[in-house]
Amino acid sequence: MNASIMEIVAIIISFVAFFYAAWLFSWVKKQPLQNKEIERVGGLIRDGARTFLKREFLVLARFCAVAALLIFIFLPSPVWTGSIIPNIMMVIAYIAGTVFSGFAGKIGIEVATLANGRCAEAAKKGIAPSFMTGFRGGAVMGMAVVGASLIGVALVYLLTGDSTVCLGFSFGASSMALFAKAGGGIFTKTADISADLTGKVELGIPEDDPRNPAVIADNVGDNVGDVAGMGADLFDSNVASMAAALIMAAALDKLEGGTEYVGMVFCFTALGLLASVIGIMCARIGKDGSPTKALNSLTYITTGIYVVLTGAATLIFGYDMRIWGACIVGLLVGVIIGIATDYFTDDTKPPVHNVAKASGSGPAFTILSGVSYGFISALPAMVGIGISALAAYKLCEGLDPTGAHAVEYAMFGIAMAAVGMLSIVGMIVSNDAYGPIVDNARGLAEMGSLGDEVLEITDELDSAGNTVKAVTKGFSIAAAGLTVISLLGAFMSEVNEAAAGLGIEGITGFDILDPLVFFGMLIGAAVPAVFSAMLILGVDKNAQRMVAEIHRQFREIAGLREGTAAPEYDKCIHIATDGAIRELIPAGLMAIIATMLVGFIGGVEAVGGFLCGNIISGLLLALFMSNSGGLWDNSKKYVEAGHEGGKGSEAHKSAVVGDTVGDPFKDTAGPSINTQITVVSLISSLMSSLFLTASIFG
Amino acid sequence: MNASIMEIVAIIISFVAFFYAAWLFSWVKKQPLQNKEIERVGGLIRDGARTFLKREFLVLARFCAVAALLIFIFLPSPVWTGSIIPNIMMVIAYIAGTVFSGFAGKIGIEVATLANGRCAEAAKKGIAPSFMTGFRGGAVMGMAVVGASLIGVALVYLLTGDSTVCLGFSFGASSMALFAKAGGGIFTKTADISADLTGKVELGIPEDDPRNPAVIADNVGDNVGDVAGMGADLFDSNVASMAAALIMAAALDKLEGGTEYVGMVFCFTALGLLASVIGIMCARIGKDGSPTKALNSLTYITTGIYVVLTGAATLIFGYDMRIWGACIVGLLVGVIIGIATDYFTDDTKPPVHNVAKASGSGPAFTILSGVSYGFISALPAMVGIGISALAAYKLCEGLDPTGAHAVEYAMFGIAMAAVGMLSIVGMIVSNDAYGPIVDNARGLAEMGSLGDEVLEITDELDSAGNTVKAVTKGFSIAAAGLTVISLLGAFMSEVNEAAAGLGIEGITGFDILDPLVFFGMLIGAAVPAVFSAMLILGVDKNAQRMVAEIHRQFREIAGLREGTAAPEYDKCIHIATDGAIRELIPAGLMAIIATMLVGFIGGVEAVGGFLCGNIISGLLLALFMSNSGGLWDNSKKYVEAGHEGGKGSEAHKSAVVGDTVGDPFKDTAGPSINTQITVVSLISSLMSSLFLTASIFG
Repeated sequence: MNASIMEIVAIIISFVAFFYAAWLFSWVKKQPLQNKEIERVGGLIRDGARTFLKREFLVLARFCAVAALLIFIFLPSPVWTGSIIPNIMMVIAYIAGTVFSGFAGKIGIEVATLANGRCAEAAKKGIAPSFMTGFRGGAVMGMAVVGASLIGVALVYLLTGDSTVCLGFSFGASSMALFAKAGGGIFTKTADISADLTGKVELGIPEDDPRNPAVIADNVGDNVGDVAGMGADLFDSNVASMAAALIMAAALDKLEGGTEYVGMVFCFTALGLLASVIGIMCARIGKDGSPTKALNSLTYITTGIYVVLTGAATLIFGYDMRIWGACIVGLLVGVIIGIATDYFTDDTKPPVHNVAKASGSGPAFTILSGVSYGFISALPAMVGIGISALAAYKLCEGLDPTGAHAVEYAMFGIAMAAVGMLSIVGMIVSNDAYGPIVDNARGLAEMGSLGDEVLEITDELDSAGNTVKAVTKGFSIAAAGLTVISLLGAFMSEVNEAAAGLGIEGITGFDILDPLVFFGMLIGAAVPAVFSAMLILGVDKNAQRMVAEIHRQFREIAGLREGTAAPEYDKCIHIATDGAIRELIPAGLMAIIATMLVGFIGGVEAVGGFLCGNIISGLLLALFMSNSGGLWDNSKKYVEAGHEGGKGSEAHKSAVVGDTVGDPFKDTAGPSINTQITVVSLISSLMSSLFLTASIFG
Repeated sequence: MNASIMEIVAIIISFVAFFYAAWLFSWVKKQPLQNKEIERVGGLIRDGARTFLKREFLVLARFCAVAALLIFIFLPSPVWTGSIIPNIMMVIAYIAGTVFSGFAGKIGIEVATLANGRCAEAAKKGIAPSFMTGFRGGAVMGMAVVGASLIGVALVYLLTGDSTVCLGFSFGASSMALFAKAGGGIFTKTADISADLTGKVELGIPEDDPRNPAVIADNVGDNVGDVAGMGADLFDSNVASMAAALIMAAALDKLEGGTEYVGMVFCFTALGLLASVIGIMCARIGKDGSPTKALNSLTYITTGIYVVLTGAATLIFGYDMRIWGACIVGLLVGVIIGIATDYFTDDTKPPVHNVAKASGSGPAFTILSGVSYGFISALPAMVGIGISALAAYKLCEGLDPTGAHAVEYAMFGIAMAAVGMLSIVGMIVSNDAYGPIVDNARGLAEMGSLGDEVLEITDELDSAGNTVKAVTKGFSIAAAGLTVISLLGAFMSEVNEAAAGLGIEGITGFDILDPLVFFGMLIGAAVPAVFSAMLILGVDKNAQRMVAEIHRQFREIAGLREGTAAPEYDKCIHIATDGAIRELIPAGLMAIIATMLVGFIGGVEAVGGFLCGNIISGLLLALFMSNSGGLWDNSKKYVEAGHEGGKGSEAHKSAVVGDTVGDPFKDTAGPSINTQITVVSLISSLMSSLFLTASIFG
């Protein structure tokens, strides 16, 4: 099968997804919204989210301008070596990566801030219409993210025919993800913590009380962190997995003199999007149905459709069954990891109960037990990733007809396992974006005084969002893990291509006992820890600024405490926005500079070790922080539901401390680590020829 | 120089150290102890510590019996392959390792529980005699640990001439360390937490109040955790570094047909002990001198003496200067890492101040800022270990006259850097054991009502102990890190030796891109996290049992609350002891079984990856937990000294939560990770021939 046809098929399926998303968007918009208060507050949230996006895009534009200039000068080869056209293509691909990802994020924010109020109002008519509004709002984001990532990669490859340029597109997506995920994560937790600290603790006013100047920023935060940030994160992972697979596919095609492998990558990713489209069309819920079941069954339906579609494609186009096998192994292990992760955060399982029980002895025991379960929760995912990588490798190393290139075939197998794990990403993003929409809907229902019955429904929808989030979060970390392993393979491919171009000897692997590799590994392992620490300290610093602003408003605005004067919501939004970007940049630069230092000191061997250490410790810390954060959150809710003394008890006070610690763990640092790993992996691949030629020890 | 002569020299220097230790012991014993109350309580502490040791030795004996049987059947080769004599030698070496380590621990406990009361009483005469009593008490332990480890390894090697048998001795030391360090860590924190929870929180009685049934267990805990546990831990590291160096030295000697390298290992380790003896003899303090300065200057003096002695030996015996260089690089980097670690826990530096300040906003911020600084604190040590390994490797790879075995020479260089880092371990143990002695002395001075002036002196001595502990702790983790890197080299040596014996192909390294290596690495990285979690949860469970017992005593013993009846101290000691051992065993078995599973599934490649992942994540977590724990401890003390509102303020309450979280971090889980890594490294080396022949994928 000619690869160009598959690229065109991928582009066509992307358009199908876009049209479907447009239909869903207009459906959501058509839902009634009559409550004036909800409309007013919803408008404030939408404006706040737009403010954040606008400022973020502005800063990102400046960052991109600098990066584009550096790319033009240095990548893929220094411009003075005569490589002007490739460098210009790289710059264009890079910019396209940021623009496509930004576009998907913008769409997601728009629909989420439209859907939240309508979802609340629909709850007056029962759970089914409310669920459908929330879900279809999220599905717009799902379609936009996967459609934009697929069409972007396909266009870049169709126009340039060069897989390395896809790395440029991927790097653009990563730049965006760094700002959207880590920056959004700092924003959302700054607002959340400040609102809680001043509102609930100091002033004794309830959550979501409109007198609190931080309350709109808090609701905006849900959208910029969980919708735009999460979307950019999965856009990034999806593009990176395609780029890594394409690099290895292109190398195999070169060996065999065909285009089959590249075609297969596009075929399998396009079918993943198609499966998600069909899955979303299947969404329905009974009059008294369970939203959790509805969401989870959609995931399983999509998985089933994908298995069937790719199996059929494998038979029709005569692909090797072993590659299909690697892809399916990845997908199944991803689902299993999601379920295992769920165990540690589900409020019907022992970990949540034990943490709630330990909270009775004081906050120190909430923390100690949560940290312990968080550590243990990393094990199933680490084992799962290890097994799927091993299985994919062993399945595909036999593909090599000559035996001389078994490693390349095997690494392609791992890349296809990552593609498989990410194949249902359209459904994952839809489920994930559903969460903040119904969370916002709950707050709006309260502010719009829609009554207890509506609140009950929105509570149930919200709780389903939290449960599903645990599964999808485990899934995305695992997928990112497998993706970065294949990026490590891509790095070696790039190094060897660069070495061949320079007429010097390439590398055959990275030996742990090579002290350069080990040196890189130790430093690479420390980077995610330092990166997380900088983000957490950033949230802390930023929250202090915002608390000071809230105090100022209560001091200076007469009548604010009594509810007769409105607070200046926008001031809080500006502080959260500017602070997020200010705190994020040093953390991002630290990771990038560490990579370059290691590369220029120890050469490509040290960089290989660096990436490996970075992946290993990054996965461990990301799983630990995401899961312990989710565990603390649900333990608090479990206590609030009346267990271990219920609201107001000692256990509740301790559980609140756990939840506050867990917030930046699970919403800022934990999920940003993925992006940090992808960024340094891509930089390493892009700079491989520089590291080959200009290092002290390498 | 003939190696046997060096072994004999090492044995002679060990005897010198023993005689000096005996003299110090009798000096400490001769110090006056007249206060009857101190004598009585000191006796209770001594009896409690003896009870713990006795039970620990009993359980260890059973564990050892099983392990010895397994060793006899399987190691170094299955007994049915005709290898009876080597297997018996291995069993004897293993048992000797546990016995020698246990002996050193027993001596340490005896002198520490003699010195504590005398140190308190000496404070009546001023700081100088009190300091000397505490320091000389600690020095007995230092001499016993290093003397016993050196004489043990030297005897084993002198009698068998086989470096692999030294691994058996090392494994024995590790078994002991696992029980003493992890078990002691659970004991001490169980008692500490239970005493605080019931005493200070529930009953409102002061710390160290004799009415609290847990108070003696708490004081016993300081001795079994910090004296016996720490001693066993450094005994283990010291033996492991010697064993790893000997294995590589023996391989080089075989290549060159001499005994020079083995001789050098004994020469350099013996000189380290000699330097410590001289350093301890230099101990003195002015009438109003600073104990912190006195302790630190001793470390620098010992370092200087060691540099000069080994430099002279290198010149006299004609050793290659590059090996001496590797050794000195290790030593200097160790000292620098110790100083860098100190930065994060010193109460005059920003981290402690910032955590104290954050505590004002509530316990969640104490935790978040402490976790963040803990993460960052891992960086200098990781970079330092990386640089010293790289420097040692680069220095020594040129030693190879033919060029074909550069890796072996280079790995020997890393092993010698570890030997260098551990050379001043005699002084380190002395300083470390000083801490719990003066800590106990402070408690005894209070219970014996020795007056405010004495308390002021013991407070100053105690604070010096805490400061020095931060430096020595960073130092020991770094030394363990470098040791396990050289154990990784030893593992490869063992694999290749076994492969040669079996007539199959050996390995040349562990390639990260080999999926078996990567699979092992992911699982190896998860093990220290799970191990830590199991220990922390173990402390928690055990503390609950002890709290229940304290409640029972207050309920059932009439007059206890009024102070007219004595509590049943021994019941609490028994609970802490039995629980510690019960909680420890599953954690230890988990690590051992994970190693075997990985080995029998993925073979030696997977085990290589497993060890690498284990080292990387183990170092990161050990540094994180030890340093954040120390940071929280000192932040609490800083607040108690009157900053951020002082005692009783909101900041103080939060800081107490941080300290409680930090306790099992820094005294149970963090320092036990070293031992966990050493245990799995040794098991891997010992089982290498089984993994070579009986694995599914390997």
